Amino acid sequence: MRRVVIVGFGTAGLRAALSAKAQNPGSNVIVVSEEQYLTYSRCGLPFVIGGDIKSFENLIVVSNAILQKSGIDLILGFRAIDVIGNTLYIDSIDGKESRQINFDSLVIATGSKPFIPPIKNVNINNVFTLRSIDDGIKIMKSLNNIRHFAIVGAGAIGLECAEAFSKRGLTVSVIELMPKVLPNILDHDMALLIQEDMVKHNVNLKLGKRVEEILGSNSVKGLVVNGEIIDCDAVLIATGVKADVVFAKNIGVELGSVAIKTDDFMETSKTGVYAAGDCVETKNLITSKPFTPYLGTVAYRQGNVAGANAAGGSMVFPGSLGSIVLRIFDYEIGFTGLTNEQAEKEGLNTIVSKVKWYTKAEYFPHHGDITVKLIFDANSRKLLGCQIVGTSDVAQRINLASMAISMGAKVDDLIKLDTCYSPPVADVIEPIVKASEIALKRFKK
Amino acid sequence: MRRVVIVGFGTAGLRAALSAKAQNPGSNVIVVSEEQYLTYSRCGLPFVIGGDIKSFENLIVVSNAILQKSGIDLILGFRAIDVIGNTLYIDSIDGKESRQINFDSLVIATGSKPFIPPIKNVNINNVFTLRSIDDGIKIMKSLNNIRHFAIVGAGAIGLECAEAFSKRGLTVSVIELMPKVLPNILDHDMALLIQEDMVKHNVNLKLGKRVEEILGSNSVKGLVVNGEIIDCDAVLIATGVKADVVFAKNIGVELGSVAIKTDDFMETSKTGVYAAGDCVETKNLITSKPFTPYLGTVAYRQGNVAGANAAGGSMVFPGSLGSIVLRIFDYEIGFTGLTNEQAEKEGLNTIVSKVKWYTKAEYFPHHGDITVKLIFDANSRKLLGCQIVGTSDVAQRINLASMAISMGAKVDDLIKLDTCYSPPVADVIEPIVKASEIALKRFKK
Repeated sequence: MRRVVIVGFGTAGLRAALSAKAQNPGSNVIVVSEEQYLTYSRCGLPFVIGGDIKSFENLIVVSNAILQKSGIDLILGFRAIDVIGNTLYIDSIDGKESRQINFDSLVIATGSKPFIPPIKNVNINNVFTLRSIDDGIKIMKSLNNIRHFAIVGAGAIGLECAEAFSKRGLTVSVIELMPKVLPNILDHDMALLIQEDMVKHNVNLKLGKRVEEILGSNSVKGLVVNGEIIDCDAVLIATGVKADVVFAKNIGVELGSVAIKTDDFMETSKTGVYAAGDCVETKNLITSKPFTPYLGTVAYRQGNVAGANAAGGSMVFPGSLGSIVLRIFDYEIGFTGLTNEQAEKEGLNTIVSKVKWYTKAEYFPHHGDITVKLIFDANSRKLLGCQIVGTSDVAQRINLASMAISMGAKVDDLIKLDTCYSPPVADVIEPIVKASEIALKRFKK
Repeated sequence: MRRVVIVGFGTAGLRAALSAKAQNPGSNVIVVSEEQYLTYSRCGLPFVIGGDIKSFENLIVVSNAILQKSGIDLILGFRAIDVIGNTLYIDSIDGKESRQINFDSLVIATGSKPFIPPIKNVNINNVFTLRSIDDGIKIMKSLNNIRHFAIVGAGAIGLECAEAFSKRGLTVSVIELMPKVLPNILDHDMALLIQEDMVKHNVNLKLGKRVEEILGSNSVKGLVVNGEIIDCDAVLIATGVKADVVFAKNIGVELGSVAIKTDDFMETSKTGVYAAGDCVETKNLITSKPFTPYLGTVAYRQGNVAGANAAGGSMVFPGSLGSIVLRIFDYEIGFTGLTNEQAEKEGLNTIVSKVKWYTKAEYFPHHGDITVKLIFDANSRKLLGCQIVGTSDVAQRINLASMAISMGAKVDDLIKLDTCYSPPVADVIEPIVKASEIALKRFKK
């Protein structure tokens, strides 16, 4: 009987386990995880804090009953330490127990850990991160005594928490080193739309500013930002995550430039050892360069592939466009492919267009606005990237753009798109088509 | 100075006029129209009746100011009668005035007229159609004296009016000759979802039934349906429209099997005479056969092409997938390409899959349900069609499927789609991808 051992029980770990069983129902699948919880959606954490979701328990996406029915064995509260031959060595978190498990194939799904920048006095009380349910519980327990929450980092989690804390009635400041919010997914002009909306919602935005020091001896009393003092009583460090490659390094798995290196089958440099999720680096489908999108969707798909292959399959994960969507205050924000700034850094010659339109027929009440920005390759005429900021209906437009990019669609294909329309749902003119028409005129004849 | 004359001022006519001016700003553009209103959205009519939109005036999408600024001349209240050489003959609707206009090129955009099936006693009071603002005004004026509205035809307008009349507090019956609602865009299993929802909303559905007679001498007293009497006091005939080809026929333009025939430049059999919108037949992008989608989106695009070319351009309209979306009670309903029933009629071998999923993360409150059905060609593995019924987020998924079909995407491409996700907006699993994965397993290895 083939034994598949999975280290980590986030989205990638769970999918790997289920996929291994689906591929090879006779296999023995064992998951080892440091956490005490069953797999949960980390992406949902800010929405529990904001009150949209009632409890952290709701984020748990699997049950013991499902795992038992699937025949997956769980070892929770243990950390993977080393591998010798085909034996995995694990220690309990409390250090009291050591075990060893034989395996035929191994899947590393150790995920990522918050990246903490070098800020003076960062280890006092009321300085938080939000990566786990335990992190979330700590924040919730402290909320009643917090008046002004300062968030360091204007990425997805930082902005989602800005809204969550606002909804809880707190004063919120967001400090970002880069001169714009969501720097990895929005060009400056698109970020501006979100910045204006956040200011409208009374968020104190400090962009292009460095956090130098946290004030306070026992607990947070303020924050020093480029010499200016922000009078806050709690700090969320939301400066992104870092692939957790400690175990992979320990067992001699080859690392790439940013995380664990795998082939398209999600197999590492060691035969029979696979990896999936935030701990691996992913091929960008446009640049073919490795990157770490740190996305649940990617972890899900990579977990499926790694698990199936660890159990004898031969699935392929082709890479990612980094497609992402999020909702912040009045807007959904979406991105796929490359921003114009990223494309130019890659040395690509781009043609860019942008359209602001309506989410429904203009005459239909309660229509919102939606701004679509498209980036084309000036030479190949192919779509390279899409950014959208709109009051609704952003996610599926990003998926459409992702489909277009992955099929190699040119501007000439996009202008011909046969779209659907009904006054309460969408306008007769699709802004993606409109933006393509505008772009077309900017191409050399 | 080139003179472009356009007959008809619906969506196609307006777009043709604007497009001609954009193509050739020095051209003289004249529009002749029977209606007294400027271009308005026919698709919006049911929503005025339902009360979502305040007034029929709101549906007017252009103003005299815009037309003047664009330099477009209007002749309203006139009907195009004949063409001799390069002269168009028009008569006023009241028959009191005749005029003639010289043209260099002509665009026929005469649209479509309601199709009235041979029902006994169809010409009495309180029997309505809903094609124009005047039709809508007549219905609105009568509503206070109506208790039970019977709708003949379960197409888009029929169902939209069923909801509109329900919202007005009326009893509503819908009678359809075919054994399902929306017979042109939904397979039986998908139509069932809508039928259940309509019954839930107290609509009296009579499917696979023929309307034999309208009862009443002066005004409607009932309806005879397969021998059964429905006790209604008003009837809406919503059995579809028919291309208005009277003028085209008069002037000797060649008709195809269903409407005016044009080439990809929207030029008819007569050089310099173009046609666009509901009065022309369109190439189905999958079957390459002519069809009449009767869609605002198609009229819009064809009008753009016909107008530009009439003014000296050389744009192309490639054809349509019949992409459509509508909202009825709890659901958005979308379609593109071919239904399975249509594909089988075309002699295609299909692989079909269907998935019911969530519109947001399952754990996010107020998520709705969405059912996606995909039709693939068993031989080429290409996507042929997509039907979606969901509480929201249907339109852009249809556009995605339309993009996939037009790019020749195979099931193997769809399973790799890099989708985006955020708990309040979309689930980590995209139902289109899930349905593709299920379909993949049904293909021969």
